[in-house]
Amino acid sequence: MNSAQLTNAATLPPARLDRVRIVLSHPSHPGNIGAVARAMKTMGLSQLVLVNPKVFPDAQADAMAAGATDVLQAARVVAALTQALAGTSLAVAMTARRRELATPALWAREAAAELTNHLHTVSTDVALVFGNETSGLSNQELALCRHWAMIPVDPEFSSLNLAAAVQIMTYELRLAAKEPGRPPAISGAGLPADHNEIEHLMAHIERAAIASGFLDPASPKRLMARLRRLFARAALEKEEANILRGLLSALEKPSNY
Amino acid sequence: MNSAQLTNAATLPPARLDRVRIVLSHPSHPGNIGAVARAMKTMGLSQLVLVNPKVFPDAQADAMAAGATDVLQAARVVAALTQALAGTSLAVAMTARRRELATPALWAREAAAELTNHLHTVSTDVALVFGNETSGLSNQELALCRHWAMIPVDPEFSSLNLAAAVQIMTYELRLAAKEPGRPPAISGAGLPADHNEIEHLMAHIERAAIASGFLDPASPKRLMARLRRLFARAALEKEEANILRGLLSALEKPSNY
Repeated sequence: MNSAQLTNAATLPPARLDRVRIVLSHPSHPGNIGAVARAMKTMGLSQLVLVNPKVFPDAQADAMAAGATDVLQAARVVAALTQALAGTSLAVAMTARRRELATPALWAREAAAELTNHLHTVSTDVALVFGNETSGLSNQELALCRHWAMIPVDPEFSSLNLAAAVQIMTYELRLAAKEPGRPPAISGAGLPADHNEIEHLMAHIERAAIASGFLDPASPKRLMARLRRLFARAALEKEEANILRGLLSALEKPSNY
Repeated sequence: MNSAQLTNAATLPPARLDRVRIVLSHPSHPGNIGAVARAMKTMGLSQLVLVNPKVFPDAQADAMAAGATDVLQAARVVAALTQALAGTSLAVAMTARRRELATPALWAREAAAELTNHLHTVSTDVALVFGNETSGLSNQELALCRHWAMIPVDPEFSSLNLAAAVQIMTYELRLAAKEPGRPPAISGAGLPADHNEIEHLMAHIERAAIASGFLDPASPKRLMARLRRLFARAALEKEEANILRGLLSALEKPSNY
């Protein structure tokens, strides 16, 4: 992905992400449901489906949603995963551990690409399914999904919070769903110093360096070449060249010392 | 990124990520500090630095760390961002809103690539800096970082939780750390100046500029900010910082005039 793609991800309306259902199967903690709603909304998703949540609705869910209460209020509660997937044409199950499964495994980024590619070709919903915080998804639930996917984590500490997993996946979906664009224009960049301005600056520095005894003209080494390279790399601006020359002039005045 | 690369991201030891400091400046909520520690550890990061946290250590931080207590216990607490950055050679500031800044903006994925590329070329630490939950980073803090970066979010609901932002960035870092990176520089590029070297140079310039009468401390305008921006853009090298300081010292000596 290049910069251009990322910009639109930040600025254009994410038209297709409203067709991605985030499905939480048997979530135990209402706080997690709220944090999931918040994570979804930051990335422009709105469809939350809860399969047999332990506690919902709940004040803790509202508190953790931090402004994404509309996502919570629109959440659908169903009794089984098959109901949550009704009407979808692609479901991807997230799993934290490797399983003995015959379906192809995807990494998070690949899963996001798969889901958004699918959204380009169909007008139905797709689903991304997350299991219970402790036990994950059952084999029966996994069997209802076409793919399963994993977030790459440190194998020595793979304890990803449910809302954190949703945050990563919705972030990947947001990036995958978007077309190219550019980062916001960088304000305040000035006019570049032209050739003469740079040469005058270099001559001024050299003069001051010699007069001050810092540079021995009989053995100049690489000093001026190094500074030249620095200013070239920085693409020195007019105002910067003026500042540096003003500073040099001031430093050259013996009366100040 | 292909499956093979992602596989490595999941299975190989992320050797360089232990040189990435996650810096939280003025975090208000100890629960967030704990959740950040957990997010870091899932992606294989271990260095947490807290700048003037409101409450730390705290039972809520421990609870939210959920097993990442080693990261919390090893966390360093400092009084100012400049201390958190001491010894680093690249710092990237995360910001939630667009700012009037002249340094180049990066998106999250680009920032991760920049940081990990840098880790390939130096043996010092790098830092990723997150501001207070409500107010973000101050302009003074931003000025200490070479780049600033944003996570692409829905502009209509950009309320990303602090730990969620850390989770996304550490996930991107984990993936980026396993990329081959840019081809090695052929150009004889030197070692980058580290945080302290740049701050000493800035202080030296300011001192000389005031002593010479070029800079009026009562009306400093934007001189130092402009120079800071120039050196950030150039990614100033150690030797260049030394040259500039040597030149300044020579110019300051009254006997030469």
